Amino acid sequence: MKLLQTETLQSAREKLLEVMKDMREIEAVGLINAEGRVLAQDIISSCDIPHFRRSTVDGYAVISKDTQGASESIPVFLKIVEEVNIGFEAKSSLKNGQCAYVPTGGMVPEGADAVVMVEYCETFDQTGIAVYDSVSMGRNLMNIGEDIKIGGVLLKKGTKLRPQEIGALASAGYSKVPVYKPLKLTIISTGDELVPTDKLPGLGQVRDINTYALESLAKKRGFEIISTYVLKDEEELLKSAVSEAMKKSDIVAVSGGSSQGKKDMTARMLDELSHPGVFAHGISIKPGKPTILGFDEKSRTVLLGLPGHPVAAMLVFELLMVWAKNRLIGQTDEKCIYANMKTNVGSAAGKTTCLSVRLVDKEDGYIAEPVFGKSGVMSTLTTADGYTLIDMNKEGLQKDELVKVWLF
Amino acid sequence: MKLLQTETLQSAREKLLEVMKDMREIEAVGLINAEGRVLAQDIISSCDIPHFRRSTVDGYAVISKDTQGASESIPVFLKIVEEVNIGFEAKSSLKNGQCAYVPTGGMVPEGADAVVMVEYCETFDQTGIAVYDSVSMGRNLMNIGEDIKIGGVLLKKGTKLRPQEIGALASAGYSKVPVYKPLKLTIISTGDELVPTDKLPGLGQVRDINTYALESLAKKRGFEIISTYVLKDEEELLKSAVSEAMKKSDIVAVSGGSSQGKKDMTARMLDELSHPGVFAHGISIKPGKPTILGFDEKSRTVLLGLPGHPVAAMLVFELLMVWAKNRLIGQTDEKCIYANMKTNVGSAAGKTTCLSVRLVDKEDGYIAEPVFGKSGVMSTLTTADGYTLIDMNKEGLQKDELVKVWLF
Repeated sequence: MKLLQTETLQSAREKLLEVMKDMREIEAVGLINAEGRVLAQDIISSCDIPHFRRSTVDGYAVISKDTQGASESIPVFLKIVEEVNIGFEAKSSLKNGQCAYVPTGGMVPEGADAVVMVEYCETFDQTGIAVYDSVSMGRNLMNIGEDIKIGGVLLKKGTKLRPQEIGALASAGYSKVPVYKPLKLTIISTGDELVPTDKLPGLGQVRDINTYALESLAKKRGFEIISTYVLKDEEELLKSAVSEAMKKSDIVAVSGGSSQGKKDMTARMLDELSHPGVFAHGISIKPGKPTILGFDEKSRTVLLGLPGHPVAAMLVFELLMVWAKNRLIGQTDEKCIYANMKTNVGSAAGKTTCLSVRLVDKEDGYIAEPVFGKSGVMSTLTTADGYTLIDMNKEGLQKDELVKVWLF
Repeated sequence: MKLLQTETLQSAREKLLEVMKDMREIEAVGLINAEGRVLAQDIISSCDIPHFRRSTVDGYAVISKDTQGASESIPVFLKIVEEVNIGFEAKSSLKNGQCAYVPTGGMVPEGADAVVMVEYCETFDQTGIAVYDSVSMGRNLMNIGEDIKIGGVLLKKGTKLRPQEIGALASAGYSKVPVYKPLKLTIISTGDELVPTDKLPGLGQVRDINTYALESLAKKRGFEIISTYVLKDEEELLKSAVSEAMKKSDIVAVSGGSSQGKKDMTARMLDELSHPGVFAHGISIKPGKPTILGFDEKSRTVLLGLPGHPVAAMLVFELLMVWAKNRLIGQTDEKCIYANMKTNVGSAAGKTTCLSVRLVDKEDGYIAEPVFGKSGVMSTLTTADGYTLIDMNKEGLQKDELVKVWLF
């Protein structure tokens, strides 16, 4: 195996994105199941919305000029020529001196160019109204295409669909939408110390955390889980599981093999199973240094060696795979939260440091309290709201310094 | 039907929460499907984590006093008495002058009180090492219960489970967890103008948006959808749908009936179908004034009349139902984002105004740009990142004023 230098986070990200650049597949998904998915094509509107002039109030459609000068003391009198029903076409064509009742959402008849709210009108014997307000042209109505224009881009490729986008797509007549297929992931957690969650660990043993934590994180971030394995640290066992997983997955993540010797075994094994093989071994991030990245061109699989510590494994998955997946499909990252540091925090220069923080809402902004703990302590994550990254060229953070916090 | 005054948002919320106070049911869910769910009980740890002293590095377990004075130029020599394997019990009990190799995550033998990283050790003929660093007591090891103590609260009731909580639960041996059952919701969208998404609307007609937008929003917020209906605005039709839905749902949401007369019909109908009936008709929020709240004690169903405009319907659902559901189960709301207003914005005093905003990341904080649009325009939501609430006692927002923005 070739010797590889430790990569910076930025260069590891770029190399990962480069090998993943073609891993985009599209599928059509029923609208109601598309929430949270990412559009794989621009959605062009095939119709104007609204496709008729709609009233935005309960009122009388009028020719605005007719109401000029009308006021509370000097009303204008208009003749009712139609009562438009909601859901039906307006039949009349207004001439001066005429008006038509239109409910909210109803069609405004031809000739009319504004709607007076019922609150400013008084009816007399069902045939006419007194209007106590003057309205300007276009008042209280939506023009054709005012919400969405025919042929216009309703929603852009890369948009993560929220409930309101689902609503907009429904209004434009889409019952299916083209979205990116989730990337297929297999998670292999290795270690001679691991026992399944439902077993009582003996001395020296611990329950497997990584298949649960990583599956849960990956699903939340839009990956599809193909399978998960908890395996002893035996080369042949691992090799056969990884080879099998490569056939069905876009990404095979192997966490564990935490001791120095074992780590090299994982890297060598991943390199042997793939071509061109491992392209990053060791990334200058803390925690997460012993991360391995590789690629197999034939099966088009990314191989990811993650640290055995669950905290480090989750952070590396987030910083590398989620980062790359979002860029691959043009999805914007989640919004960060700005916060001021509660205390000074030191960091190792030459490494990007990922610091867990708790956010305290001060009603005029957030304070970020660092959450410390020994490597691998789950409570550093369960008591934290998110993390901030300390640049590798900085030696730490100052009290009150403004930082970006990403929630997790 | 009794006459009801317009409620403030705060008083409507309180009344809603009061009728919902017993709508909490618990179910046990498999750990891997529990992400995003909310714990219904405190989780007490039945074990210490770790339950043996674990090394956090690859190194040599030592008696820290033995290393006193060791440095790069003056090493201390120790005898290797054991090589601890990962996943196995450490057998030895160290005496002065002795050490044992321990891999990361391995068990630290009795007698030892610190671990020296391999980087600071040199082995000679497999029987001894030279230590070039002095370590303090407790260095590089995790004590029993240091992450989680037996009998301690691992996670509190009301915690929304994220991947890291799933990991912590796995490590403590939970394969199922007690979480709140989602509230059951039926959505009825009414209006003579509505056609299904897959139909071409005629003049005066529009496609139904609300069943899609509300179902999608409610699911995202943790509700369970029982059924959705798109119905004509006919009293008997609505009555039978609502009665039927009340048998199976915790909440029946009826959106639409937008014109003044129809609105009263909905309120009267909801009041007739329930006892004690409608307790709020009209809420001083903008958009969303024509909101109706009722409760039926016998079937234990909340009746919610929502505006027909999708934008208003979604905001009211968020401001009332999601707010109440979160409080009911002790779940904290999503974190808001602080932003400075880009421009002055006026608002109607006496009403809580819900203003859609776009967030612009300035790398030292966010600017909130108001998104304006006529009532009911979906693009005011699809181009917005979130909303801010303008207090009913304020007349608007000033340029540069700091506001809280909730993402949607």
